[in-house]
Amino acid sequence: MNAFGILFRVSIFGESHGPCVGITIDGCPAGLSLTEADLLPDLERRKGGTQKGTTPRQEADYPIFKSGLFNEKTTGFPITILFENNNTRSEDYQKQRSFPRPGHADMTAHQKFGGNEDYRGGGHFSARLTTGLVAAGAIAKKLMPAVSIVATITEIAGEQDLEKGLQKAIDAKDSVGGIVECRVKGLPSGLGEPYFQSVESALAQIIFAVPAVRGIEFGTGFAAARMFGSEHNDAIMDERGTTKTNHAGGVVGGITNGNELVFRLAIKPTSSTPKEQVSLNWDTGKAEAFSIKGRHDLCVALRAPVIIEAVTAIVLADFMLREQKIKRVLD
Amino acid sequence: MNAFGILFRVSIFGESHGPCVGITIDGCPAGLSLTEADLLPDLERRKGGTQKGTTPRQEADYPIFKSGLFNEKTTGFPITILFENNNTRSEDYQKQRSFPRPGHADMTAHQKFGGNEDYRGGGHFSARLTTGLVAAGAIAKKLMPAVSIVATITEIAGEQDLEKGLQKAIDAKDSVGGIVECRVKGLPSGLGEPYFQSVESALAQIIFAVPAVRGIEFGTGFAAARMFGSEHNDAIMDERGTTKTNHAGGVVGGITNGNELVFRLAIKPTSSTPKEQVSLNWDTGKAEAFSIKGRHDLCVALRAPVIIEAVTAIVLADFMLREQKIKRVLD
Amino acid sequence: MNAFGILFRVSIFGESHGPCVGITIDGCPAGLSLTEADLLPDLERRKGGTQKGTTPRQEADYPIFKSGLFNEKTTGFPITILFENNNTRSEDYQKQRSFPRPGHADMTAHQKFGGNEDYRGGGHFSARLTTGLVAAGAIAKKLMPAVSIVATITEIAGEQDLEKGLQKAIDAKDSVGGIVECRVKGLPSGLGEPYFQSVESALAQIIFAVPAVRGIEFGTGFAAARMFGSEHNDAIMDERGTTKTNHAGGVVGGITNGNELVFRLAIKPTSSTPKEQVSLNWDTGKAEAFSIKGRHDLCVALRAPVIIEAVTAIVLADFMLREQKIKRVLD
Amino acid sequence: MNAFGILFRVSIFGESHGPCVGITIDGCPAGLSLTEADLLPDLERRKGGTQKGTTPRQEADYPIFKSGLFNEKTTGFPITILFENNNTRSEDYQKQRSFPRPGHADMTAHQKFGGNEDYRGGGHFSARLTTGLVAAGAIAKKLMPAVSIVATITEIAGEQDLEKGLQKAIDAKDSVGGIVECRVKGLPSGLGEPYFQSVESALAQIIFAVPAVRGIEFGTGFAAARMFGSEHNDAIMDERGTTKTNHAGGVVGGITNGNELVFRLAIKPTSSTPKEQVSLNWDTGKAEAFSIKGRHDLCVALRAPVIIEAVTAIVLADFMLREQKIKRVLD
Repeated sequence: MNAFGILFRVSIFGESHGPCVGITIDGCPAGLSLTEADLLPDLERRKGGTQKGTTPRQEADYPIFKSGLFNEKTTGFPITILFENNNTRSEDYQKQRSFPRPGHADMTAHQKFGGNEDYRGGGHFSARLTTGLVAAGAIAKKLMPAVSIVATITEIAGEQDLEKGLQKAIDAKDSVGGIVECRVKGLPSGLGEPYFQSVESALAQIIFAVPAVRGIEFGTGFAAARMFGSEHNDAIMDERGTTKTNHAGGVVGGITNGNELVFRLAIKPTSSTPKEQVSLNWDTGKAEAFSIKGRHDLCVALRAPVIIEAVTAIVLADFMLREQKIKRVLD
Repeated sequence: MNAFGILFRVSIFGESHGPCVGITIDGCPAGLSLTEADLLPDLERRKGGTQKGTTPRQEADYPIFKSGLFNEKTTGFPITILFENNNTRSEDYQKQRSFPRPGHADMTAHQKFGGNEDYRGGGHFSARLTTGLVAAGAIAKKLMPAVSIVATITEIAGEQDLEKGLQKAIDAKDSVGGIVECRVKGLPSGLGEPYFQSVESALAQIIFAVPAVRGIEFGTGFAAARMFGSEHNDAIMDERGTTKTNHAGGVVGGITNGNELVFRLAIKPTSSTPKEQVSLNWDTGKAEAFSIKGRHDLCVALRAPVIIEAVTAIVLADFMLREQKIKRVLD
Repeated sequence: MNAFGILFRVSIFGESHGPCVGITIDGCPAGLSLTEADLLPDLERRKGGTQKGTTPRQEADYPIFKSGLFNEKTTGFPITILFENNNTRSEDYQKQRSFPRPGHADMTAHQKFGGNEDYRGGGHFSARLTTGLVAAGAIAKKLMPAVSIVATITEIAGEQDLEKGLQKAIDAKDSVGGIVECRVKGLPSGLGEPYFQSVESALAQIIFAVPAVRGIEFGTGFAAARMFGSEHNDAIMDERGTTKTNHAGGVVGGITNGNELVFRLAIKPTSSTPKEQVSLNWDTGKAEAFSIKGRHDLCVALRAPVIIEAVTAIVLADFMLREQKIKRVLD
Repeated sequence: MNAFGILFRVSIFGESHGPCVGITIDGCPAGLSLTEADLLPDLERRKGGTQKGTTPRQEADYPIFKSGLFNEKTTGFPITILFENNNTRSEDYQKQRSFPRPGHADMTAHQKFGGNEDYRGGGHFSARLTTGLVAAGAIAKKLMPAVSIVATITEIAGEQDLEKGLQKAIDAKDSVGGIVECRVKGLPSGLGEPYFQSVESALAQIIFAVPAVRGIEFGTGFAAARMFGSEHNDAIMDERGTTKTNHAGGVVGGITNGNELVFRLAIKPTSSTPKEQVSLNWDTGKAEAFSIKGRHDLCVALRAPVIIEAVTAIVLADFMLREQKIKRVLD
């Protein structure tokens, strides 16, 4: 249940306040040059604490390879990477444990796991689990040097000026959300299938695995529902399948058409708002006002782009392997 | 690649102008009363030709059970259902084969399958393949009598008055899209997992398997990106997890919270618009004007609700089995 | 649960006395020339009624392609093949329904499925389900023209003279078992993985899916347990990995080594012996003597070789695709 | 490829001379009491160095839980367990790297992975990887307190007197193999499916994942091929399915029948015999005599029983979950 992919397969584990979070990547071709240094730039982008509006929790987030590397190359066997948790302040969470935090999984986890869940810092639900995804994404990107995957924030708190959007949160002492757009260039046509393994299906599955995502749209997306067919259809201009417009966002019939792959997603405002809220008090059995403690992002969308790039790369590497566009053993 | 699900698993096959389309359902519990009559109401809803704006192609769409039933009950073994194709007019497609139709998979299929694809009527890409999904959905619904799944069109061509929206298409002699909303009542809390098997992930995967879907959003969806956290968070009011508002759409941390499950999706305008379009002429190697022939829906969104209900039911039955909320052998 | 394979994936369905048995093959590359005629030789080998010791039940076993073919080539989409059941005599089974037949699944099916199982002729448990496997195997063989897969009976009823072994059964008016050996030439080295996807693991999984198989051994097999290491080890003679002996049977560390792949399996005597037996009488609740009715093989091992070849081919085609030794689209 | 199971799913990683070996268990129900102490008895049984005929390499084999536990209970999320490699002597392997060792995966790994494999101590192919399986098996056993799984060595070097068999190896300065038998009591009827998920199929798949296994047989096994049907069939004596004999070994039609589950397997002699052997010299390109260095078991069968119990428990826990015989959340 914590695994994704067919030939390039990732599985994640760990808890926010346990010993570590980590990932295993099974099916990475042998012979890829790989060191910790290859992962650091993307891990650095994911890290909180370095920009306004992100959590002051500081983790080294240094990837510790536990398997699958030999002489700084991949062996073709599972690559397990750990990230130690050093900078935890679990007491923050114990203090507020009387209240399941709205927007967080405290209540649903409790109902599902019968009280056995590790609730400290969200436990396994913590966005800290995406650290492993970012590491796997960096490896997937390395497998596809001709492919460029770039995700950017296009909007924060309804503002296209991101600074302004963030200032809204700071001024309101509240959390805010945003919109992220991802564009992929250099993809071959022919990736994906109709139906359950369409490019949209696989991408949507893994993108909704990223905490706080509430919607996804491809190409023109929701706006397509208000267009005429003659406007929305992309005229095919040549044998390679180049289209005049790109309302389809690079996917037709579930299959890449060789044009730019484009999609957007909505990130909800961080659940841990500094504002007072109402929730059930488990001790009294009544709904009461309370405030969240702990260190949190005002806007998780700020940290989303590198995660979105990573999961996109994971999906695409899997599709490229299925279509034999990446070799099983690299030269 | 044409299969979906873990314990309640569907796989589809067939082509629009081949002998049939069909589905196999593996993992349906034994002992469920089932006859063709149980499937007919939803199949009837899916059928074209009975309302303004849908294709005049008329298929009986009568389900032929080939396995898995005995004495009008499920046996616990795979249920294969065929729908014969009787009413095909393949010559329409041969005539226009020089042009890959924009918005359709003609070009991507050709690139991917090297010219071996059955292109008649879209072949395996045809929305006719959803017939099997509707049949499986009707079975999934029967497994969950306490759950109500209702999808409705909330908008056609940007109009909330659906008649008006459709008239826009007829007046413009063009195709149009729409918005579908799905609401599920009676779900237990505790379905789904964080990450790759979140309720959103699994639903999005199968919903993007439905042709013409371009976007999906849960609860408040894209609008959440413009809200403050204190507005968006749903206050938890009691031990059962009832929330005051339902911005989350019934899923928190990937897990159902016992409130109504709500999501919306965007359906693009039918690719087969009656309007003249531009595409590559495979014979001349140049982009030229041409017109689509064949019988088509002006607005495929009209037929979408029952398909959306079906795939939703398929996902939920799978989750209910995983959580042991449906027995392996029914009484 | 009724599916096998990762990239070349088969799923079977049907019942002995229902409308049909069948198979869906998902993941077969596009562009393979294929007609019914390609399947008939192996289907003919599997058929009963043509040799001494096999059931007189005569089925046409003519493959009816329902999807996945176009212009006598595979399209890359699921290939569904049906075999109609025409020659059923269900009344034979109803008469003896009071007794769960020893060696058959009557009792275990009843316990597992709560009485909902189709018991006529063994229902879904019938060896008739292997018809589809033989069809899929013939397709898999066509995908690997350089590979030769030959299974032969090496022993019947303990006799290496097969005629004599069979005569033992006829004389004793009892059923008998046998040993089948399978040899595969022309395989590349490098197929398979250590552990769960070892060549032995995958082969054993699907070979135990064949009814009546009770054991499997690779290379020297059980005899290896009585050898010294220095005897059993196969000296490697050249860069291609040719070994002087082949005690390993062509697989080392779960991976093919380019030598002949060799394994043997034990087939139990047909459960439906003509001899009187003891079983529970469901009507009286007591164990009593009874006799089996219906038409049956005296020695199912006679029909096993082509089935064993088929499932072997299915596994190997899947491994060849994973290793990119078969193209996704054939020329 | 390094994962096994549907609902109780294990995946292994690591190398013999890398930082660690490990396992992730996904799908273990929440609420199981679990500490390191629960794993130690079986880990101790697997360890070498404590009995005659096993390797003098001494590893602490202490399980380090990295995730999935909270307050000494399982949380329902992935349990990752590491075993550090402390006692490696890689230089032994570098010295003899000129020769791919017969019986080992050196040659097949080299051919498959293009020289990128970690060859030290067999790398990922090392039997040390079974440490994780033993840990997972101990957890699976704890999930099924009513089930007793006992594997024993019934034969070493052809001798039923195990001491004598082992002495043969010591006297001959050669390695030897053996036979292991596994018996499972207390299983419910109804586990398993016909075909690909038969109990035999699933067990055989994972048992051939254990290094050095060359054959498996259920119940009477290969001997069944020499019996008459009337001898081999097990008379059913009562409503619970108790049989008079147990030639079937507790599985009929792929499904447990409530009687004892019995199977045997053949373990080949350890590939690393102290005797001089012949293999290709990669440096000279010619086959030459050489001797194995490093520390090795004379008879790996000695360490097999606890591993066989473990993989059996892993399969059975998965089947018990599928049949809802184990709850998703334990009380």
